Amino acid sequence: MQDLLKEGERIDDLMRAGLWIIQNPQRFCFGMDAVLLAGFSKANPQDKVIDLGTGNGIIPFLLYGRYKVESIVGIDIQSENIDLANRSLQLNHLEKYISFQEMNIKDALFKFEKSSFDVVVSNPPYIAGGKGLVNETSSKAVARHEIFCNLSDVIQSAAGLLKPGGKFYMVHKPFRIDEILILMNEYKVPVKRMKLVHPFLDREPNMILVEGIKGSKGSVIIEKPLIVYESQGKYTREIYDIYGY
Amino acid sequence: MQDLLKEGERIDDLMRAGLWIIQNPQRFCFGMDAVLLAGFSKANPQDKVIDLGTGNGIIPFLLYGRYKVESIVGIDIQSENIDLANRSLQLNHLEKYISFQEMNIKDALFKFEKSSFDVVVSNPPYIAGGKGLVNETSSKAVARHEIFCNLSDVIQSAAGLLKPGGKFYMVHKPFRIDEILILMNEYKVPVKRMKLVHPFLDREPNMILVEGIKGSKGSVIIEKPLIVYESQGKYTREIYDIYGY
Repeated sequence: MQDLLKEGERIDDLMRAGLWIIQNPQRFCFGMDAVLLAGFSKANPQDKVIDLGTGNGIIPFLLYGRYKVESIVGIDIQSENIDLANRSLQLNHLEKYISFQEMNIKDALFKFEKSSFDVVVSNPPYIAGGKGLVNETSSKAVARHEIFCNLSDVIQSAAGLLKPGGKFYMVHKPFRIDEILILMNEYKVPVKRMKLVHPFLDREPNMILVEGIKGSKGSVIIEKPLIVYESQGKYTREIYDIYGY
Repeated sequence: MQDLLKEGERIDDLMRAGLWIIQNPQRFCFGMDAVLLAGFSKANPQDKVIDLGTGNGIIPFLLYGRYKVESIVGIDIQSENIDLANRSLQLNHLEKYISFQEMNIKDALFKFEKSSFDVVVSNPPYIAGGKGLVNETSSKAVARHEIFCNLSDVIQSAAGLLKPGGKFYMVHKPFRIDEILILMNEYKVPVKRMKLVHPFLDREPNMILVEGIKGSKGSVIIEKPLIVYESQGKYTREIYDIYGY
C-alpha cells in the first residue's frame, strides 16, 4: 500500500466496508461534514451519483461503503485532489464503480449530460466573498472559500445534472440557510428535508444538511436535531451510529 | 370583573404583571405559540407595535407585560375577537397603551401609514389552501386556515408597515419554512434570526419562530433549539422561564 503514498500523506481507515483513504494533512483532511453528509444522503446501488467538489474523494468512498452504489463520479477543480482520490481508488480496487475528474463545478453542466444523474451530493466551499481571496489559491482556501464557484453555481449545476425526481444532498453553514432555500427553489430543486447539526444540545447549529428533490413542490420536513457531543469529548449515540461503530 | 364576561367565557390569569385575559373555549384560546412568540419578540417601551391577527389580544397583553410597550395595536378580522379583546383591555385598564381594530390583515397597509411601525408581530393562520374552506367561517377555522389572508399577505403587510430597520416576529409551522424564507426575502424583510421549537429533544420541531429585519441583508442566526418537555408532562426550565414562573 505504501507505494501509493507521496510525501506528507497518510492512509486512514474509513472503518467501513474495509475501505481506506489517502489524506494529506497539509492540504485538507475530510471532516465530520463529509461523514454526516454521507450519512444523511440516500442512494440505491443502481443510481448514477455525482459528487461536486469531491476533495480527496471521501464522499464517493463513503457512499460506496454504505449503499454499494456502482456508478459514482467525483469532480474537483484541484488536480492534486484528483491525484489523491485516484490513488485511494487504486488502494480500494474500486475503479469499476468510482471515477474522478478534474473539473470546475461550474463546468459540470457542459461536460456531463443534463438530467442524467439520480443523486447529486456536495460539500461545497462555505465562505462567500471568495473574490477578496483571488490571489489565495492554497488548497485549503479553495476548499473553504467561494473562489472558483459560489453557492449559486453549485445549486445550478446540481439542479441541471439531476433527472426529474432526482435528489440533491448538501451540507453547508446554517447562517446561509436563507440563500440555500431561495436558490434551491429558484433552480427548481426545492428543499424537502433538512437537519441541523448542533455541537451540543444547548448550542447554535454549526452545520445544516439539506435534501432537495428536482421538480418537487410542497412542504419541508425539518428532522430532529443532530447533537454531536453528549459531553465534552464524548460523542452521542447517533454520531457513533453514523460513523459506523 | 364578572360583568365584562359573556356566556361561555372565562377570565384567565396571565401570570405576568397582574394581567388577565378573557377567553372563550368555544371560540379559540391562546396557545403556547402566542406565548413563545411573545417570548421570542423584542420591543422597547417607546416602540410602535402592531399585531396582525390578534385573536383575543393575547400578544399585545404579553408584550405590554414584558416590555411595557406603550403603543400597541392589534387587528383581527373577526368582530367577536375584537369585542373580547376590548373587554380584556377594560379589565386590565390598558386603554391608554393598547387598542384593537376589526380589520383584514390584507387591508392594514391601506388603513395605517406605511413604514410607520417599529415592530410587527403575527401568529397567523398556519394551514394553506383555505379556499377549499370558503364556506367554513367558524372562528376556529378562520384562525387556523388561510381563508381571508395567506402567508404572502401577512408578510407583505408586515413589510409594508415596518420602518426601515423595523422588526417582524412571526410564529409558524416548520413545514412552511421554505415559503417563509422566500417570501420574507421577496418583501425585503429577510429572516435574521430563527428558532425551532421541538416538543421533545428527540422529535421533529412543531413550531418555527422567525425575526426579520426590514431592508437588511446577510446571514441568518439559527438559535439553539427550544425543547418544550423534559419528560412527559414536565416542562423544561426554558419554558417555565418564558411563561414567567
